[in-house]
Amino acid sequence: MTKQNGFEGLELGFDIPALPGMDEADIQTPCLMLDLDALERNIKKMGDYAKAHGMRHRVHGKMHKSVDVAKLQERLGGAVGVCCQKVSEAEVFARGGIKDILVSNEVRDPAKIDRLARMPKTYGCRTIVCVDDLANVAQLSAAATKHGSTIECFIEMDVGAGRCGVIGADKVVEIAQAIAASPGLKFTGIQAYQGAMQHMEKYADRKAKLDAAVALVKAAIDALEAAGLKPELVSGGGTGSYYFESTSGVYNELQCGSYAFMDADYGRILDKDGKRIDQGEWENAFFILTQVMSHAKADKAICDAGLKAQSVDSGLPTIFGRKDVEYIKCSDEHGVIVDPQGVLKVGERLKLVPGHCDPTANIHDWYVGVRKGKVEVLWPVSARGKAY
Amino acid sequence: MTKQNGFEGLELGFDIPALPGMDEADIQTPCLMLDLDALERNIKKMGDYAKAHGMRHRVHGKMHKSVDVAKLQERLGGAVGVCCQKVSEAEVFARGGIKDILVSNEVRDPAKIDRLARMPKTYGCRTIVCVDDLANVAQLSAAATKHGSTIECFIEMDVGAGRCGVIGADKVVEIAQAIAASPGLKFTGIQAYQGAMQHMEKYADRKAKLDAAVALVKAAIDALEAAGLKPELVSGGGTGSYYFESTSGVYNELQCGSYAFMDADYGRILDKDGKRIDQGEWENAFFILTQVMSHAKADKAICDAGLKAQSVDSGLPTIFGRKDVEYIKCSDEHGVIVDPQGVLKVGERLKLVPGHCDPTANIHDWYVGVRKGKVEVLWPVSARGKAY
Repeated sequence: MTKQNGFEGLELGFDIPALPGMDEADIQTPCLMLDLDALERNIKKMGDYAKAHGMRHRVHGKMHKSVDVAKLQERLGGAVGVCCQKVSEAEVFARGGIKDILVSNEVRDPAKIDRLARMPKTYGCRTIVCVDDLANVAQLSAAATKHGSTIECFIEMDVGAGRCGVIGADKVVEIAQAIAASPGLKFTGIQAYQGAMQHMEKYADRKAKLDAAVALVKAAIDALEAAGLKPELVSGGGTGSYYFESTSGVYNELQCGSYAFMDADYGRILDKDGKRIDQGEWENAFFILTQVMSHAKADKAICDAGLKAQSVDSGLPTIFGRKDVEYIKCSDEHGVIVDPQGVLKVGERLKLVPGHCDPTANIHDWYVGVRKGKVEVLWPVSARGKAY
Repeated sequence: MTKQNGFEGLELGFDIPALPGMDEADIQTPCLMLDLDALERNIKKMGDYAKAHGMRHRVHGKMHKSVDVAKLQERLGGAVGVCCQKVSEAEVFARGGIKDILVSNEVRDPAKIDRLARMPKTYGCRTIVCVDDLANVAQLSAAATKHGSTIECFIEMDVGAGRCGVIGADKVVEIAQAIAASPGLKFTGIQAYQGAMQHMEKYADRKAKLDAAVALVKAAIDALEAAGLKPELVSGGGTGSYYFESTSGVYNELQCGSYAFMDADYGRILDKDGKRIDQGEWENAFFILTQVMSHAKADKAICDAGLKAQSVDSGLPTIFGRKDVEYIKCSDEHGVIVDPQGVLKVGERLKLVPGHCDPTANIHDWYVGVRKGKVEVLWPVSARGKAY
């Protein structure tokens, strides 16, 4: 039994990991912890970059799903608004006061289209959505007309991600013309996010993929201009590529997300000088705080963060600031940490850098924001689980 | 635009995937769907098995995290109570009216121990916890004494899972004696779950591992009896092993979880006749309902369930009842489905069998229970995100 705990006296059944003012040592584990100083530096740095390069920065809200983080990105990073992937996420950001929202994804279900079409009037926000199919244009137009609103549309191009999106300038022009001719819709631009290359280790490999994407986008812009449909916005770019889009002469809007938090998988990619991007370009601001809860075997510590505290799709977490111990395995509620010298103690706290920040954030209800050893804020993961 | 949607007229911002009475075709995707007929058959079958073998069945609530499913397991399957892995989960089950609760895990954090110690008096439930370290005995005793309650204790043995738990009968007796001598505590039994073997494909391989576990447990029981500390309960067993524990002559309590839902990873293991356990022993009752949301490339369909709708730690989902299409890749919000003949249409619904049910359930807020094409119930994932 250690010291008096900060939760002493609270009612049973509270389900928050911390309270503002509490010592970092009293935070309940496992939970998500944000290093507020690092977060603010990351946000400011990317904002300054975008400004210096004349780029709009539409921050990717699907990464953090937090209205509070998005507002910090507007305030410190000059963000022009957010993008996100689902209508239910977009509604959360709209209710939170974000005024320029892109659903950077196709919306095909009639109920979701109806929700999307209500957003401009209900929340007073600019509402943009991606389209990759002519049939969707009629759906969107009918819903916008019904609600007396305007839905702005990006044509999504598949520039190498291999998911949604059309291939070829002809198809872009065909859909843009349909949008321009449809009541309730406005053709606003192009969505061209090269997702597949973001995690390639080498800068030159990423550049080659992005150069190819830029050529495709350029061809589409030329064809659109020839058809009298100059796009207002050309949007894309991520944490592994934003410098390419910013200097392409083609894009005018970035959509970075992970830079603000960083994670183990992004951290491993290399910048143009061959240096890991988590060793200078960006700081780790996002952690899973965990505690050792068993050390019954001398060389193995068990911590309280397993599969229900993180997504391991992009690999296991690393242990921040430690080279003497290693997280090697996890099951639903446990992490196995190799501790060859038996240095860890039961109750000891460790900061895990998760493999992949987006799906890890989506598991938790709260961010515990910490500065100088004290809990400063408790922010909800506002759009957690908003998958519709 | 298709038919009138069941959500028509609902207020904006609702965040439920369905309403009881709705057609299955109107459920919002992606979401968790339960086939209630299959679920009830699974629950009844395991209940009948446990009864026929004179075993208590303490169902594993950490799998589904649902008070409603646990109560169905009590009603149809004769479950004696639940086990779960976290104090915050245990509180949810206690508030839901479950009267016999085991935290099948160690609890070391002072705030969590305090919450645990309050449970018997606050909720009137039997409260059991696992112990694998002498130092924990003093912590638990102090908290139980403070709250005037009794915490029952299982000694956790590591019988091959390689996580928490002590090794060796001497250590079991040493901790049991300390528990028996500590005010506020009661030595109740042994936790001996062989988790690592549950997913081994071959029955004979699983049997060999369980035989080894049984020998370790038997030695511990003998040593405890020699010390005058006969365990009341010897608990363990999972969906891949319950027949071994039930016929061991050593265990008297099962802790199965996944049998009720089934998942793709468990489904692949083979029964004693070499048949997959999802082809006769258990039915798939648990699905991620998803919709095709883009088919811009002829041979590739994109669905709306990715990493934020499931955990892929145990592999990608399979598509239930389909051999013509295959889910081959996923990113945060998308699944890539190979559709060589181009048979899928945008808006078409598919039922995914997730690789791993437990961490997948933990991502979602709701279970949509369906029978004969109609939504019958909407159950909260009551202990979702309860990781403390």
